[in-house]
Amino acid sequence: MPRIFTYNAFKNHSPKASAYADKHAPVVVCAPTAERGLPFSVTVRIGTNQKHPNTMEHHFCYIQLWDLETLVAETRFDHRALGDKPLQIEAQFTIIPQRSLRLTAMAYCNQHGLWQSEEFFVHAPIQDS
Amino acid sequence: MPRIFTYNAFKNHSPKASAYADKHAPVVVCAPTAERGLPFSVTVRIGTNQKHPNTMEHHFCYIQLWDLETLVAETRFDHRALGDKPLQIEAQFTIIPQRSLRLTAMAYCNQHGLWQSEEFFVHAPIQDS
Amino acid sequence: MPRIFTYNAFKNHSPKASAYADKHAPVVVCAPTAERGLPFSVTVRIGTNQKHPNTMEHHFCYIQLWDLETLVAETRFDHRALGDKPLQIEAQFTIIPQRSLRLTAMAYCNQHGLWQSEEFFVHAPIQDS
Amino acid sequence: MPRIFTYNAFKNHSPKASAYADKHAPVVVCAPTAERGLPFSVTVRIGTNQKHPNTMEHHFCYIQLWDLETLVAETRFDHRALGDKPLQIEAQFTIIPQRSLRLTAMAYCNQHGLWQSEEFFVHAPIQDS
Repeated sequence: MPRIFTYNAFKNHSPKASAYADKHAPVVVCAPTAERGLPFSVTVRIGTNQKHPNTMEHHFCYIQLWDLETLVAETRFDHRALGDKPLQIEAQFTIIPQRSLRLTAMAYCNQHGLWQSEEFFVHAPIQDS
Repeated sequence: MPRIFTYNAFKNHSPKASAYADKHAPVVVCAPTAERGLPFSVTVRIGTNQKHPNTMEHHFCYIQLWDLETLVAETRFDHRALGDKPLQIEAQFTIIPQRSLRLTAMAYCNQHGLWQSEEFFVHAPIQDS
Repeated sequence: MPRIFTYNAFKNHSPKASAYADKHAPVVVCAPTAERGLPFSVTVRIGTNQKHPNTMEHHFCYIQLWDLETLVAETRFDHRALGDKPLQIEAQFTIIPQRSLRLTAMAYCNQHGLWQSEEFFVHAPIQDS
Repeated sequence: MPRIFTYNAFKNHSPKASAYADKHAPVVVCAPTAERGLPFSVTVRIGTNQKHPNTMEHHFCYIQLWDLETLVAETRFDHRALGDKPLQIEAQFTIIPQRSLRLTAMAYCNQHGLWQSEEFFVHAPIQDS
């Protein structure tokens, strides 16, 4: 059954294991507050201190952005459009929140499976009208 | 964080809860043995005794077939091509196994999130040459 | 601009060019008539007399099924699940037609772009009630 | 057969027809030159002077970015994450060009089919080493 990997499950392991996890783990990067009804930018970046290979044999295929149980958006890449050097792949999404968000990213590496980020909470307060 | 739902997590709950789970849970349907290098048919069906709605507001968006940590194939549907009556949606995949398989399906409902099947083992013995 | 390739554009060319086109051109395979509201099977097969490679460097990534201007369904493959020998890749779809269909397939090869089938008409007569 | 619509095919029609086309036609927005091997941002925006509805019944499902015959990347949206007001949907992509690019976008509206942008040329000169 596909396991869902996280950085946290590896972080207290050997430096090699935690670097492996760092290089695969997506991170949600965005502001902690949003205004309802206005465009809001969210970046998902793979890797914090490590870069992941981007070769034909070993690369990320897609990045999904979730808001709790709802799949918000998904980007797929042809790895050839990202060069052949290790990198921190990024996906950018512009969404228009109607309420607060509990964002998580999931990303799939063709060699090492499905990785999930930490949840990132975005507060979108009700506005006075 | 998107939870990964399974039928088993609900099956000892109330009849209503287990019907809810049944109607969302994908099932891998295929032969228990395969011949290496030959086409092998796998069906993923959503629901065992229950049918799921297929309306604009509530429908399945995609079905994925996994072999352990590897995403084998994925089918996306426009719900309008499947009528507007409740049904057990099916995705058919033809693969060519090179080794034994540990198949799992994942399926996404736009209202109730991501559901995972039981793992189904397909034995593909090494052949005498 | 991505051209949309078809077998017909190549069929009067050299045997080499028409074999190239044959090996890339999807074909819609199904019954010519369907019953409204009942499951109806459609296979899309890549290639008529030719097999397409299925290697890491050169393979089909996805097959789409269209009904006129509507995307009915789409299947994506990991080429590794289909072995490493040339083959005629197939995608199977079960749909539930509400009216007659004008089916076309589009398929994407990572080396040679986007290919379109001939249109296949499926007659789904109005039933007496 | 799915037609591939463009703004140009409609622009000399009635104001209503050209507004219809404007509201569906993707536009590639990026710098005209890029540096090989460095991240390069590309935005695809649907609509120039018009906004497209974003309702359950009528919305864009995906945006693809092509470099000539190669599918570079694709983003899919859940329309619910973009509010319910008409808007110019955007997809952002970061790629790392290895050569000059001939970018085109294709975008799919669930009511009005597949739309293609003009080609946008990005010059990525060979660098002195």
